[in-house]
Amino acid sequence: MTQLHKTLDWIGDLTGHLRLLDQTRLPNEVVHLDCHKADDVWHAIHRLSVRGAPAIGVAAAYGVCVGVIEGRPVDSVCDYLATSRPTAVNLFWALNRMRTAASRAVLGPEDNPNLSGRSLIAHLLTEARAIDDEDREMCERMANHGADLLENLQTGAGILTHCNTGALVSGSGDGTAAAVIFALAGRGKKPRVYADETRPLLQGARLTMWEMQQRGIDATLICDSVAATLMREGKIQAAIVGADRIAANGDTANKIGTYSVAVLARAHSIPFYVAAPATTFDLSLATGSEIPIEERAAEEVACSFGKRTAPDNAKVYNPAFDVTPADLITAIITDRGVIQPVSEQKVHSVLSF
Amino acid sequence: MTQLHKTLDWIGDLTGHLRLLDQTRLPNEVVHLDCHKADDVWHAIHRLSVRGAPAIGVAAAYGVCVGVIEGRPVDSVCDYLATSRPTAVNLFWALNRMRTAASRAVLGPEDNPNLSGRSLIAHLLTEARAIDDEDREMCERMANHGADLLENLQTGAGILTHCNTGALVSGSGDGTAAAVIFALAGRGKKPRVYADETRPLLQGARLTMWEMQQRGIDATLICDSVAATLMREGKIQAAIVGADRIAANGDTANKIGTYSVAVLARAHSIPFYVAAPATTFDLSLATGSEIPIEERAAEEVACSFGKRTAPDNAKVYNPAFDVTPADLITAIITDRGVIQPVSEQKVHSVLSF
Repeated sequence: MTQLHKTLDWIGDLTGHLRLLDQTRLPNEVVHLDCHKADDVWHAIHRLSVRGAPAIGVAAAYGVCVGVIEGRPVDSVCDYLATSRPTAVNLFWALNRMRTAASRAVLGPEDNPNLSGRSLIAHLLTEARAIDDEDREMCERMANHGADLLENLQTGAGILTHCNTGALVSGSGDGTAAAVIFALAGRGKKPRVYADETRPLLQGARLTMWEMQQRGIDATLICDSVAATLMREGKIQAAIVGADRIAANGDTANKIGTYSVAVLARAHSIPFYVAAPATTFDLSLATGSEIPIEERAAEEVACSFGKRTAPDNAKVYNPAFDVTPADLITAIITDRGVIQPVSEQKVHSVLSF
Repeated sequence: MTQLHKTLDWIGDLTGHLRLLDQTRLPNEVVHLDCHKADDVWHAIHRLSVRGAPAIGVAAAYGVCVGVIEGRPVDSVCDYLATSRPTAVNLFWALNRMRTAASRAVLGPEDNPNLSGRSLIAHLLTEARAIDDEDREMCERMANHGADLLENLQTGAGILTHCNTGALVSGSGDGTAAAVIFALAGRGKKPRVYADETRPLLQGARLTMWEMQQRGIDATLICDSVAATLMREGKIQAAIVGADRIAANGDTANKIGTYSVAVLARAHSIPFYVAAPATTFDLSLATGSEIPIEERAAEEVACSFGKRTAPDNAKVYNPAFDVTPADLITAIITDRGVIQPVSEQKVHSVLSF
């Protein structure tokens, strides 16, 4: 399905710029951000105008183009954009691809040390577009693998999801976990989606509910703390979430609250799935304990919705992510196939496919 | 400890009225509501200006006085106030006491069928004040039983709590679960409190953090979904919550999200305590499945704090309470002693004490 509102788009050509749908303004307003400087892209990623691991990678790739058009050296732009957020590994993966593309351009068959800026930009833009295209294809393959895996769910089954994992987390694809739900809906399974609102930034309330509504999928918004009760009442047949970084053993960092959902799903004998492209794996990390977890500003919690909701000087602990250990994950759905059971060996064999 | 801001107070005498601290305005503003009509009291309870099971009971008792001073018959005022909220049983318990006090007044030793309005009001006000006083004493006994039970916690232990259960949930006492924490602090145990913000109405962020700050207790605010991660990190040594209604077998209805905390605590081998006065038990209900659960407006979730955070027409499921089964509760701390293990027999024997 074509995205109704493009998550991100390259406008123009070799002197062009990156246009992003500002996700902080959804669902109230559909507003675009035009990024003409690497600075704009850095801030857009940092303040979550563009978010979701795959989309961060694609945005950063285009961000390198923006920076080079601005006249900055490739390495410096890559180093800079790498500091925008620490957890999603797709960011670093995409920036490394851009660095490699730049070296290939400079040391390519033409071997022209005086490679013009214009030619370098052409190479970089081609690479960014390739990352974007590959991401879309990965989403599609992942969605199909996931829909095959969940094929046995009854029509009208309840599916719990956390945070936002639809088209908004991909450059031009359908996303990760939500893409699996979209594919199930496409196969006539009529899923009933329960969307955790996902405090503190409410990506579930603001973005997932918006995406489900746009696709005509039955969705009910709940506070994060309601999931357990729905599970107990037998209303949830599966839980599915995305990922920001997955270690070699399958331990998965994802939006804060994911670990809670996984523990609750296990306690209620409900399968818990992760959907993520191969680019979200960081095989250099043996386990999830090595994944850096971003801690964000207290104000996101204490001053929500533009209104102060805690006393002045209240101490706040606001980690943006948590780590779900592999043994709580029923299966990880990737573009290269399904990892089940989730073990280091199985991660290795599926990703090598 | 004397309350710094009185949760509720009777102003004047036989022609007086009820003054409530408007808890919906905390922590930003300390504003009082003067209730001169039963209508005012009904709305104050309904919109949560006064909340927490014991405080609802005390407010309703004074509300009957307000209604009778206004010129309404006792039974009619009681019937009316009973419709303000469905779950907290203290409301019905307090109203029944007021009905009984009224009958006693009318059929008392004087046996005066022409009992003057003034004399009836005097009887009712005496009964409301007795309920208020007894509530304060129950809080104190409960706090001491709880502090004895948790005496073995290390100094500086992490205690997770959900919703608000301090002085704001009692007429003039220290509350329920938070009162146990206050008592531990009073015994020099330096508890480190982690307060769930408690969506959707943020009683933890707004009220618990405010109360802890006022008492100089170390407290950290977290989103509800962070509790699991703190447990996994070993930062929580005990969880303690209040209750809105407890069935004869110990199944406990409390603020939505409580069941989730209980399941997570069990999964991490952390003791999970409930603190509630005997007035919160409803022995007419065999199990928690019979407890009526209030479902509240979608806007509390979708339009938090005056800002729309979900698409128009988003379907929302917003139960105000959930039920934690007795087998997940390590002990119930009451004013009459500690119920441990939590079983129908033990509930019966402790409450009969």
